[in-house]
Amino acid sequence: MEIKTIIEELSDNLKRHISTEVYDDFFSDAYNYSLFPAGKLFRPLLVWSIAQDFSKDANFSEDHARLASFVESHHTYTLIHDDMPCMDDDDMRRGRLSTHKKFGQWQALLAGDGLLNASYSILSKLESNNFKHVLNYSTWALGPKGLILGQALDLSGKMTESFTDLVLTHKLKTARLIQTSLVCSFLLIDEESIKIKSDLKTLKELHKLGEHMGVAFQLLDDLCELVDEQLSEHEQEVNPWPRFTQECLNTLSFALNYIENYFNEKETANLRFIYGLYLKKIKTLIAGSELNIENHIKSDLGPILSTLDSLSS
Amino acid sequence: MEIKTIIEELSDNLKRHISTEVYDDFFSDAYNYSLFPAGKLFRPLLVWSIAQDFSKDANFSEDHARLASFVESHHTYTLIHDDMPCMDDDDMRRGRLSTHKKFGQWQALLAGDGLLNASYSILSKLESNNFKHVLNYSTWALGPKGLILGQALDLSGKMTESFTDLVLTHKLKTARLIQTSLVCSFLLIDEESIKIKSDLKTLKELHKLGEHMGVAFQLLDDLCELVDEQLSEHEQEVNPWPRFTQECLNTLSFALNYIENYFNEKETANLRFIYGLYLKKIKTLIAGSELNIENHIKSDLGPILSTLDSLSS
Repeated sequence: MEIKTIIEELSDNLKRHISTEVYDDFFSDAYNYSLFPAGKLFRPLLVWSIAQDFSKDANFSEDHARLASFVESHHTYTLIHDDMPCMDDDDMRRGRLSTHKKFGQWQALLAGDGLLNASYSILSKLESNNFKHVLNYSTWALGPKGLILGQALDLSGKMTESFTDLVLTHKLKTARLIQTSLVCSFLLIDEESIKIKSDLKTLKELHKLGEHMGVAFQLLDDLCELVDEQLSEHEQEVNPWPRFTQECLNTLSFALNYIENYFNEKETANLRFIYGLYLKKIKTLIAGSELNIENHIKSDLGPILSTLDSLSS
Repeated sequence: MEIKTIIEELSDNLKRHISTEVYDDFFSDAYNYSLFPAGKLFRPLLVWSIAQDFSKDANFSEDHARLASFVESHHTYTLIHDDMPCMDDDDMRRGRLSTHKKFGQWQALLAGDGLLNASYSILSKLESNNFKHVLNYSTWALGPKGLILGQALDLSGKMTESFTDLVLTHKLKTARLIQTSLVCSFLLIDEESIKIKSDLKTLKELHKLGEHMGVAFQLLDDLCELVDEQLSEHEQEVNPWPRFTQECLNTLSFALNYIENYFNEKETANLRFIYGLYLKKIKTLIAGSELNIENHIKSDLGPILSTLDSLSS
């Protein structure tokens, strides 16, 4: 199947699931505007990949579709709230006005709260026997010990105090939702159609893979910010690369190698394909600006670029 | 058991459940400050009452304790967000600074989001066979078709356009969480220990009872605002009693009569007791100011006061 078709299907599923959670008149605009047109759907695509790679019939079940819509609507609520003036204060999101700029602040606050509730409502419709495990894992990953704590570490400034705090923040704020996509997608594969043993070891490996993916995701995001020749004072302050160059290089390279080893060992072709598409976009962003980046970090990007090449080929 | 003891037990349970959801160091203050000392615990007390009245052994199970903590932490998240400047902009809550006044706005936004997630995490630990029904009902009642829609009707001003819109808003914003307390508490009673048949009719009756309780709750709350001799322009604008006096009287009196009939018919002694305590507080608030109220609404309070008397005696 072509990637475009898969993304369309995931977007259609999301529309279908959300339409049963929201009335189609009053206040539906704020939800629909924030969700559609959908973004890259990176997390739903991870759900899809795991279903493809670990089930004998490569079956993307309705439960998997629900999980995909869950992670995307949950992700979207965090973006709406993150953009608000009392948080990151961003006027733009995905090249359009952010939700509070388009509709107003109380509308954004409530649209976020509504999507958060709706995401759990979608999850509550799962039919799998592992329903409770999925719900337990998700609420742990996304609650006050997980994603929310990561946001608090970020906004309080604690994130920038040390490299350890930075990585902890990335693990909580970014990795937890990626881990939820991977671990819970695996949990939703039917016992009869599962390819490998569904034991604690497999789940722990996916949990670990998601953590490395999350940390790499954020470090690459920060790296892409350095393509500009000049950085503002604020950018220099919050971007970890100029201050913790060697630590960033080591951690990113360790994470990317871990991910590559996982793909090779488990032969997860679809997961490799989806992750490769994402890395290709990163490479395109960096391309031609390597010198700017190397000037900022006063270090050689070579090893990172070749790992990116190998993973996205 | 004395009511003081019951409230202490519910508050201790809430502390115990929340402590497993939140780390005890960074950012725990905002959660604890918002939750404790606990308020009236009206909704947890409803959960308790239903467990007492409808189970043979008057057993308040750990599942009931979880539900009680769920409704209270969910209620608390709505209060934190409602108080924020972009919503109702209230500096005070329960005689203390509201969460955003005490800690700051992003802290309040995240504390609310955290409690919302934590509430579903507590719910995800239910052991009852009716787990999924409870989760489905709750997410429907509290999401974009329920409580959140009620908040949107309120903040948009649509609530004040007609008496029908007002009652709809009360049903969504206030009744849904009360209904969740009643209906889900009943769903959590063990099949072996349940006193009456657990059929759709019983559930629908509790659903309806909760709706009337929610509407009465809000109308009595609005009525209590009229004890002041003078009302501000804003109070006169948003308080429905001066504008819709007869409709308010009819609706409140119908709701209170419905509730009384339910108590009589089902012999729910504990529910009557808890609801009676709440109505006594309302009566104390009104006492001595009946003339002020009657001046505002230019109507006789007699029938309402005697229903309150009969229900709280």
